[in-house]
Amino acid sequence: MSRFAVIKGKFHRVFFDEKLKSLKQFLRNGNYSSLIILTDSNTKRHCLPKLVDYCNLKTYHSLCLPAGEEFKTLDSAENLWEQLLPVSDRKSVLINLGGGMITDIGGFTASVFKRGIDFIHVPTTLLSMIDASVGGKTGVDFANYKNQLGTFCQPKAVFISTEFLNSLPHDELVSGKAEMAKHAVLNGLETWNEFVLNFNKTDSVKDQIETAIRFKLKITDKDLFDQGKRIQLNFGHTIGHALESFCLLTKKPIPHGFAVAAGMICELFISCKYFKLSEDFFNEQIIFLKNNFPKIIFNETEIEEILSFVASDKKNIGTKIKPVLLKRLGKPHMDKVVDLVTVKESLNYYRLL
Amino acid sequence: MSRFAVIKGKFHRVFFDEKLKSLKQFLRNGNYSSLIILTDSNTKRHCLPKLVDYCNLKTYHSLCLPAGEEFKTLDSAENLWEQLLPVSDRKSVLINLGGGMITDIGGFTASVFKRGIDFIHVPTTLLSMIDASVGGKTGVDFANYKNQLGTFCQPKAVFISTEFLNSLPHDELVSGKAEMAKHAVLNGLETWNEFVLNFNKTDSVKDQIETAIRFKLKITDKDLFDQGKRIQLNFGHTIGHALESFCLLTKKPIPHGFAVAAGMICELFISCKYFKLSEDFFNEQIIFLKNNFPKIIFNETEIEEILSFVASDKKNIGTKIKPVLLKRLGKPHMDKVVDLVTVKESLNYYRLL
Repeated sequence: MSRFAVIKGKFHRVFFDEKLKSLKQFLRNGNYSSLIILTDSNTKRHCLPKLVDYCNLKTYHSLCLPAGEEFKTLDSAENLWEQLLPVSDRKSVLINLGGGMITDIGGFTASVFKRGIDFIHVPTTLLSMIDASVGGKTGVDFANYKNQLGTFCQPKAVFISTEFLNSLPHDELVSGKAEMAKHAVLNGLETWNEFVLNFNKTDSVKDQIETAIRFKLKITDKDLFDQGKRIQLNFGHTIGHALESFCLLTKKPIPHGFAVAAGMICELFISCKYFKLSEDFFNEQIIFLKNNFPKIIFNETEIEEILSFVASDKKNIGTKIKPVLLKRLGKPHMDKVVDLVTVKESLNYYRLL
Repeated sequence: MSRFAVIKGKFHRVFFDEKLKSLKQFLRNGNYSSLIILTDSNTKRHCLPKLVDYCNLKTYHSLCLPAGEEFKTLDSAENLWEQLLPVSDRKSVLINLGGGMITDIGGFTASVFKRGIDFIHVPTTLLSMIDASVGGKTGVDFANYKNQLGTFCQPKAVFISTEFLNSLPHDELVSGKAEMAKHAVLNGLETWNEFVLNFNKTDSVKDQIETAIRFKLKITDKDLFDQGKRIQLNFGHTIGHALESFCLLTKKPIPHGFAVAAGMICELFISCKYFKLSEDFFNEQIIFLKNNFPKIIFNETEIEEILSFVASDKKNIGTKIKPVLLKRLGKPHMDKVVDLVTVKESLNYYRLL
């Protein structure tokens, strides 16, 4: 793969460009009436100066939200709309510079402002590079429910400079790698082997990101409105989300990717049971996930609590729990109803691993 | 035209059905998990019982907003989302039963709730039947600006029963007819002649509505995102909106259509000037509009105030005023920059007519 790649998605391009020259060019060609950059308090400090410098920006408006998922709310969006009013019209563009929280809320804010103004994502975390910034989902939390308000709306383009990853805490990088592992498992053996081979090689991170994005676009471009194929991207997330909520409840919050890695182990275990595969069918993947992502600690009595989160997952259809299962690498299955007893078994399996 | 027509738009169908049997059928086929009906305080009283009766609804949730454009706000939408949360999921459907205010805010509310749930319009005013309920624009006002937040999102279907018009004040009917007049002028001589012929015939109102909707869909289906062809629908609205705002400011608010009728007279006058047509080129249309819609009263000194509204119209591109002009019936022109002196002249012409 080239070091200066452009991925052509169905709806927009993704530019890999360390010095963001292509963004500079894009803005020049766009002939926008005004340019607004949205950051959180971290990216305002660590990333905005770089972007302004690389793109040689003279005139722009800067909007900033406090860092943290808890600010991805309708109130924050309202605050942004108020600030957008005096500095923008239908020909303005919003650049979302940050992690998934910023690309989600920025995308939402732009997509309904004056019935939609252009927006661009410049993701600054590994997770947002390979996940939130591609696929066209935008959203904010509402009344304590995640992503209850949102749109399906594509950015005009995505620009990726891995230089931004340098300011990222180690845990955040590891968290992003868990979503990469998910993409690899879903994409098949070849991608998985490549993923394992490169896992610790920092000089191949761009290639890894590119592979992950190509895979995600392959899925989402065919299922823009999340009606079919795209559901597979929830692999690891039914149990993962429950573990994440449980950790939040017990005041030991963990990065999203750690929960997903644990969720994948459980859902691989369940896959073996439901598809009558030998117990060690996914052994290599399970051991790799166990060895490379921090273990989530819970005791047997706490499993009931985790199960109650699984039972109330918003991805359930009515009361039916349908985690994404795998028949083999690259072969997801999205229509098996799983019972809570088996989910419990999988959590015990993970706990004792 | 048949008395029981269905118009097939590109994105949805419009059913003409006095007893709403087709809505009953549609809901049965839709297999929705829950049914929510949005009304305002007027339509809750005058229209909801009829809809419930005709469709033989046993289980539904009812949401209600106070009547009046001033409640078409983000706050109202937030209130609706809070009420939707406990009674709906992604497979729910929202029925918007009311005028343009209800179809606009209901469409917006549904289009971003859980990234979009299905919604259906059952317009109850003449204006909303021929205008707001078709074309796929949704929106709420924000920070005192009209429709600042919104989406382009199509209803699953539109159901029209002219029985609802029976509860409508006379002024509201006349207001709707002004938008019909606009469609007729834009559609060409044949439609205009038909419009004039049927203007006062109450027994042909369904045919008139059908003609107006077919025309609007012809335009909007080709320009979903308001980038080109659709702009012609602003005919009469540059000056019309200014007159509407002026009347609001002077505490003598008028129905939207009255302002549009006056705006059309002014913009026909300007068309004659800019396209070097003889002064009586649009005489028939101007006299008809003058004779059939209430005159808006303002004196010469107030014209400056009206002009300031024209100058700040959100449809302007930068400082350029571009009302839709007509070269002849059915031949709109959307790219002439008009100077304020001519706008002033047109307002004086209208005043002395």
